[in-house]
Amino acid sequence: MLHLQFDNISAKKVSLLHGISEARLRRFCEKNQTLVDTVFKSKTKAGYHFLALPDAKSTVAKVKKFVASQTKAGWKHIVLLGIGGSALGPLAVRDALISPFAKTAKLHVLDNVDPAFASDVLDNIPLAKTLFIVISKSGTTTEPMALYAVVKERLQKKFPKDYQKHLVFVTDPKNGLLREIAKAENIITFDIPPKIGGRFSVLTNVGLLPCALAGVDIGGLLKGARMMRESLKKNKGFYNVALKLAAVQFLLDQKKGKSMTVLMPYSNHLFRIGDWYRQLLAESIGKNRWSGPTPINALGTTDQHSQLQLYNDGPNNKLIIFMRVLKPAKDLKWGNVLPDEIGFLNHKKMSQVIDAAYQGTSQALTKHKRPNLTIEVPKVDAASLGALFMLFEFEIALLGQLYKVNAFDQPGVEHSKKITKKLLMNL
Amino acid sequence: MLHLQFDNISAKKVSLLHGISEARLRRFCEKNQTLVDTVFKSKTKAGYHFLALPDAKSTVAKVKKFVASQTKAGWKHIVLLGIGGSALGPLAVRDALISPFAKTAKLHVLDNVDPAFASDVLDNIPLAKTLFIVISKSGTTTEPMALYAVVKERLQKKFPKDYQKHLVFVTDPKNGLLREIAKAENIITFDIPPKIGGRFSVLTNVGLLPCALAGVDIGGLLKGARMMRESLKKNKGFYNVALKLAAVQFLLDQKKGKSMTVLMPYSNHLFRIGDWYRQLLAESIGKNRWSGPTPINALGTTDQHSQLQLYNDGPNNKLIIFMRVLKPAKDLKWGNVLPDEIGFLNHKKMSQVIDAAYQGTSQALTKHKRPNLTIEVPKVDAASLGALFMLFEFEIALLGQLYKVNAFDQPGVEHSKKITKKLLMNL
Repeated sequence: MLHLQFDNISAKKVSLLHGISEARLRRFCEKNQTLVDTVFKSKTKAGYHFLALPDAKSTVAKVKKFVASQTKAGWKHIVLLGIGGSALGPLAVRDALISPFAKTAKLHVLDNVDPAFASDVLDNIPLAKTLFIVISKSGTTTEPMALYAVVKERLQKKFPKDYQKHLVFVTDPKNGLLREIAKAENIITFDIPPKIGGRFSVLTNVGLLPCALAGVDIGGLLKGARMMRESLKKNKGFYNVALKLAAVQFLLDQKKGKSMTVLMPYSNHLFRIGDWYRQLLAESIGKNRWSGPTPINALGTTDQHSQLQLYNDGPNNKLIIFMRVLKPAKDLKWGNVLPDEIGFLNHKKMSQVIDAAYQGTSQALTKHKRPNLTIEVPKVDAASLGALFMLFEFEIALLGQLYKVNAFDQPGVEHSKKITKKLLMNL
Repeated sequence: MLHLQFDNISAKKVSLLHGISEARLRRFCEKNQTLVDTVFKSKTKAGYHFLALPDAKSTVAKVKKFVASQTKAGWKHIVLLGIGGSALGPLAVRDALISPFAKTAKLHVLDNVDPAFASDVLDNIPLAKTLFIVISKSGTTTEPMALYAVVKERLQKKFPKDYQKHLVFVTDPKNGLLREIAKAENIITFDIPPKIGGRFSVLTNVGLLPCALAGVDIGGLLKGARMMRESLKKNKGFYNVALKLAAVQFLLDQKKGKSMTVLMPYSNHLFRIGDWYRQLLAESIGKNRWSGPTPINALGTTDQHSQLQLYNDGPNNKLIIFMRVLKPAKDLKWGNVLPDEIGFLNHKKMSQVIDAAYQGTSQALTKHKRPNLTIEVPKVDAASLGALFMLFEFEIALLGQLYKVNAFDQPGVEHSKKITKKLLMNL
């Protein structure tokens, strides 16, 4: 299970100006256990419904059955057409669990209407060996629908009689444009539960279907999420890690001027979780001028050579959340290869080098009074990912209550969409 | 040539609370033309030496000669071992100009000591067809040297007589550990000019060699940089785009509370420029508690479905810099494919869709009083990239003077390195 290490946000370590005393954090968590209770009580309500997702064993069974039915088609490429939550969740899972050199079907995610980017993929993969997954709840999302237009035209031209075979829709169970098209043209569909918003959808068919097709253990994802949920139910107040994380982020932002949250895994495989979390935090909490810490993605050790100068010496306005992998999937070692000047690097394992770098950075930041905390991930597997998703989604549901905003809408993106639509209508 | 559009940072558009009046910006630029003059006068000094790099035609000739000499080796993989500036520049160029489906040698960048990530690459590419480029000025950078240890051991085991054939070093012309190893073991080397820091090195052999091996027109990179430099020499005060950009960023940060700079290209191919710029800005200017805007990377339209809610409605503390590509490398179009409800998307080109989305977002942000500006890129080619590199490097040299910090050192990363070294020594 995940372990969270909060030592380096304490006033004792980083001063009262930049940190929080343990007593205060304890009181704050105890007082706000009611927010945790509210989440569990609201489990079947819109937004909060993400809590129930890990129980959907029938969804897993249906996906697995579909994946098995597709083996004879021998897909070499799975192309996901989707954007926002429909892309960032699957990308986080793919990059964490599937090697780019794997022999399984390759999962491409087209999450942009950049013509150069999209045609690069669409012109280079063999249509005959490709399954396209179109993801949109309403079927009116501009990006996937524009991409779908290109793909459908190409498929119909090449396979006039059975182009449908190359298409799967993930959409609302009853309503919306994709649902209508699917009915009219006899295309296989998978449901998105109606009470779930895009950024909370990774543990629905949105994440499960593409990842299963690419070879991910989707049962493990749900199992990890379930275990985390149970732990959040059992452990209360100061001992509830989602509440503690939310409390730290809220207090550091509102009381100590830490208006940015950096998510910095020491693991390339976990890097994309940062992109997924950026949407989760930004869209859920960024609602008014006093509410909305800015999420930032970073990668250790890579960003030690890019961002660390700023984090250590620049304005003290960030909370750094490290992720540390305790047991890497593979390791590398070497003998007496390097000259004496850097002889301390000889006879090492690479896992020791990255872990020492994590410790060096965390200790240096603490010495510079920069609050930081660490999520220890036992290993990068489906269960850990599922646990991370649940932890962060739960945390956001709490942050919404702390900031007194609706964590489940996103009114601030509508204006841009309207102008875009008007411009396209007049072309 | 690049064109910069500053309309949406004006007080007229986004209010005096969040924008700058044209008169003030004009006065500020005219007063600070002296900073531009200082950069040109300091051309041969440490740090400022980046200005002279585009003239290094002999470097290009030497690289091209080497590339030609390697054709008979038939490398299928080029693996770069480097971190920070040694990785982010080459990655930005690679992702902008080379399709992942290209038939040329594939450029892999190992910029982390993550054992799972590194072994994924090293265990899956055929050593016999791989050339490794080790980049470190001193030869003591932990990450590339640890990776080099693994690679050298494997190469020596597999090719005991001529493992050197698979290695090239890019390092200091005279000093340092890689230089010593190269001499002792007869390994081909390329120089990094001694007066150039890592984050300003993309137009040296650091960027040129790996990119040329992967098929990039490196002459075009330098030509674009030269053209930008000449334009920055000729156009003064309010008409100097680097000065205007620096002025806007500085004034918005210091006077209007825009402590974050978001770089948001509407182009997947330009996305990695954001990573390169993050290091450039963060390491150069992040020097003390009142100096250091935080750089953030984003991608249009993708991040409209992730960050935009926060940018539009959250705290008004960001400057958004868009990049807009006027002519995409390829385009996609379609006919009457979609149902009437989204019929406005029919008979469109994808370039129209992404451009309408850019306009919608830029207009919506402006309406919400969020200052934003746009860099128009005529097309994504080597010359445009070279121009972007020069523009941003020059801007940073000006920002250093405005913030009164040394833009060319990075003392804040040493502490972490020391602790890391001590930890590894005691293992």
